[in-house]
Amino acid sequence: MTLHFITGNKHKLEEAQMILPHIESIELDLPEIQSLDPQEIIAEKLKAATKEHKGEFFIEDVSLYIECMNGFPGPLIKWLLEAIKKEGIANLVLKYENHNATVKAVIGYSNGNDIHFFTGEIQGKIVAPRGNSNFGFDPIFQPNDHNQTFAEMEISEKNAISHRNIALKKLKDFLEKHL
Amino acid sequence: MTLHFITGNKHKLEEAQMILPHIESIELDLPEIQSLDPQEIIAEKLKAATKEHKGEFFIEDVSLYIECMNGFPGPLIKWLLEAIKKEGIANLVLKYENHNATVKAVIGYSNGNDIHFFTGEIQGKIVAPRGNSNFGFDPIFQPNDHNQTFAEMEISEKNAISHRNIALKKLKDFLEKHL
Repeated sequence: MTLHFITGNKHKLEEAQMILPHIESIELDLPEIQSLDPQEIIAEKLKAATKEHKGEFFIEDVSLYIECMNGFPGPLIKWLLEAIKKEGIANLVLKYENHNATVKAVIGYSNGNDIHFFTGEIQGKIVAPRGNSNFGFDPIFQPNDHNQTFAEMEISEKNAISHRNIALKKLKDFLEKHL
Repeated sequence: MTLHFITGNKHKLEEAQMILPHIESIELDLPEIQSLDPQEIIAEKLKAATKEHKGEFFIEDVSLYIECMNGFPGPLIKWLLEAIKKEGIANLVLKYENHNATVKAVIGYSNGNDIHFFTGEIQGKIVAPRGNSNFGFDPIFQPNDHNQTFAEMEISEKNAISHRNIALKKLKDFLEKHL
C-alpha cells in the first residue's frame, strides 16, 4: 500500500522522498482551522482527509516560534509572511533584543484509524535575509552553531540538520517498527 | 421568526441588542478557517451553521489592521492577543513610526439561502493601554478625532461611534427594507 504525503508543495515532496523514497504526493483541499497548536490544526485536517481518502497518509506543518513575540506566530507563520514578507519579519524581530526563534515541523500520520505525531525542532535566531530559498523564512533563520541561514546552506547540508528531516526520520523509524 | 446572533460573548450580544432588541443568541461550535479575509472566514462558518440550524442568523467578526504590519493581523487578531496581550501589541507598534490602525467589524447574515455582509470601519491609532474593557484591544485603540481609547469611553459613547454599531445599523437597515 502506498503512503501518501498530502501536499501541493513539490519542494517538500522532494525533501521527504530523500528520507522516504517510496512515498507519493496527493493534493487534497483540507480545511485549515485557526489555532496556535499545530497538532490541533493537523488533527482536523487528517479527520477531513480520512473522509475523502482511504489508506495511509501524512501531513506536515511548519511553525515558527519567535521568542520576543512570546512564541507567535507558530503555525500562523504563513499569514505573517504573506502580510509583511521575510524582510518585514526580520525588521520586526531586530527591533527587540532577543532574536531567538524555534522552527518546528510537525508530521501527523494517519492509517485511517489512529493519528500519530512526530516533531522536529531546531533552535536558532532571526537575521536579516541572506540567501535564496523555496521555503518562506529560510533566508531569515540561522540555526544555532551555524554561520549560514537555511537559505545559504547546500540542500544536503540543510537536510542533514533540518526540523523537517528530524520529523521525517521519526516517521520512518515508526513505520519500520510497526509495518 | 427569531433572528439569532451566533456568539458566546454576552458583551457582544448586549451591544447588538441595543440596535436589534429582539435578537437572541445561539452558541454553535463552528470551524474557523485560517485566512486574512474576514468574509472568507465568516462564509465558511455560515455554511457550517446552515447545516446545523434552520432559520435566520448572523455572525460578527472583528479584525484589526495595523499599518506598520501591512494590515496584519486582520481577523487573526485574537491569536496575536493571546500570544503577546494588548501590552505586547502596543510595545510592538510603538517601535515603528506609523501607529495607524483600522478596526473593522464584519457581519455575515444568512437566511438559509443567501449570505449578506455588512461592514463597519473605524480608523485610529495604537497607543499604550489606557482604561479597562471586556473587549481585547479596546484599551490600546484610540479612534481618530478622540482623546480616549475605546476602553476609556462610556459604553454609550463607544457604541455611538463603534465599528460594530456601524455594521449592526447596516444590518438593521437591510432587515427593515427586506422583511
